[in-house]
Amino acid sequence: MHIGKVSGTVVATFKDKVFEGKKLLIVDHLTPEGEPTGKYWIAVDDVQAGLGDTVMIIDEGNSARQVVGMDPAPIRAVVVGIVDEIDIAV
Amino acid sequence: MHIGKVSGTVVATFKDKVFEGKKLLIVDHLTPEGEPTGKYWIAVDDVQAGLGDTVMIIDEGNSARQVVGMDPAPIRAVVVGIVDEIDIAV
Amino acid sequence: MHIGKVSGTVVATFKDKVFEGKKLLIVDHLTPEGEPTGKYWIAVDDVQAGLGDTVMIIDEGNSARQVVGMDPAPIRAVVVGIVDEIDIAV
Amino acid sequence: MHIGKVSGTVVATFKDKVFEGKKLLIVDHLTPEGEPTGKYWIAVDDVQAGLGDTVMIIDEGNSARQVVGMDPAPIRAVVVGIVDEIDIAV
Amino acid sequence: MHIGKVSGTVVATFKDKVFEGKKLLIVDHLTPEGEPTGKYWIAVDDVQAGLGDTVMIIDEGNSARQVVGMDPAPIRAVVVGIVDEIDIAV
Repeated sequence: MHIGKVSGTVVATFKDKVFEGKKLLIVDHLTPEGEPTGKYWIAVDDVQAGLGDTVMIIDEGNSARQVVGMDPAPIRAVVVGIVDEIDIAV
Repeated sequence: MHIGKVSGTVVATFKDKVFEGKKLLIVDHLTPEGEPTGKYWIAVDDVQAGLGDTVMIIDEGNSARQVVGMDPAPIRAVVVGIVDEIDIAV
Repeated sequence: MHIGKVSGTVVATFKDKVFEGKKLLIVDHLTPEGEPTGKYWIAVDDVQAGLGDTVMIIDEGNSARQVVGMDPAPIRAVVVGIVDEIDIAV
Repeated sequence: MHIGKVSGTVVATFKDKVFEGKKLLIVDHLTPEGEPTGKYWIAVDDVQAGLGDTVMIIDEGNSARQVVGMDPAPIRAVVVGIVDEIDIAV
Repeated sequence: MHIGKVSGTVVATFKDKVFEGKKLLIVDHLTPEGEPTGKYWIAVDDVQAGLGDTVMIIDEGNSARQVVGMDPAPIRAVVVGIVDEIDIAV
């Protein structure tokens, strides 16, 4: 898993029904300290994440298919959690 | 998923029948702001994307096999959607 | 597998029950010489690793699902061992 | 898939029989414009590609196993096509 | 597959029995010309590779599980061959 921040949304026209009614989030990859790394994902939202939320994202097909409860399905990245606290040793 | 832009096409001779009649697109990876990152994929087209279109691309074998409806099949990247709107928080 | 160092923990709210009672570690990727590479994972702990421990991490869904004994499960990176010794040829 | 150029061959001693009689190619990753990116793969040849050929390469285990017709098999990258034409929009 | 060089070994304490009696190698990624790229893997040895050997490495879970003959198993990178000869076109 990775730490990310929801920075936007994407609206697209898909042929596959797995995307029906799904919200697609732009999730910027963050360092544990909260700095953007420049990497990002377009991910399906499973936890009602909002703009600016710090989230947990998984980028693996089988994980994503299980989360949306549809297999087979052409899907890979999914937001699975909302981060409450990050503790870094000093 | 990733945001990409269709910048060209490839014609190749394959042995595997999964590629018969399939259009192969050159898809440049974009940032959410629309800048090319330098990364690209050769992807099978599932949505009649045209040159210059901004698209959603998935790079995962099981996703691609489901989209083309053929399994097993040696295929991994596939264009699954056409982007209508990108909203970035400011 | 990769060599990493546990540098912190993350607490998050998940919908999926695979994360119930699991400790999530921030694991910084190290070179064999012990220098951080800048890459990191959020991984499920399977070996009671503590802060500062040098660990073995695997980043693959099927490995992670087997380790937690739950399949399907949206999970990918897992700490599977604690490093006792690294020998580098000179 | 990716565009690559066959720049050499590798001869190695394997334990697994999937490699028996298989030609292993060094394939340099190219940009769509034909410039090497610095990345490369060692791939099993499925299309009788020769030195200097521009080829289509897939780097995914299930694709590779299907192409060689052996599953399970420890194999991941495979040359699946020979590029005839690349068209880039200007 | 990738070309690597065995540069060391790792001893670690694992919970999973797939690692029992397995030798873990530090394998530095090489260019076809033999230069280290800075990337490395910790891989299970399947071919009695020794320090300094140039080897073929595969980084894919299903490949690794087949090589060690144990599935499920939390394992991903495995040394599958010893390189005898690399020929690069000039």
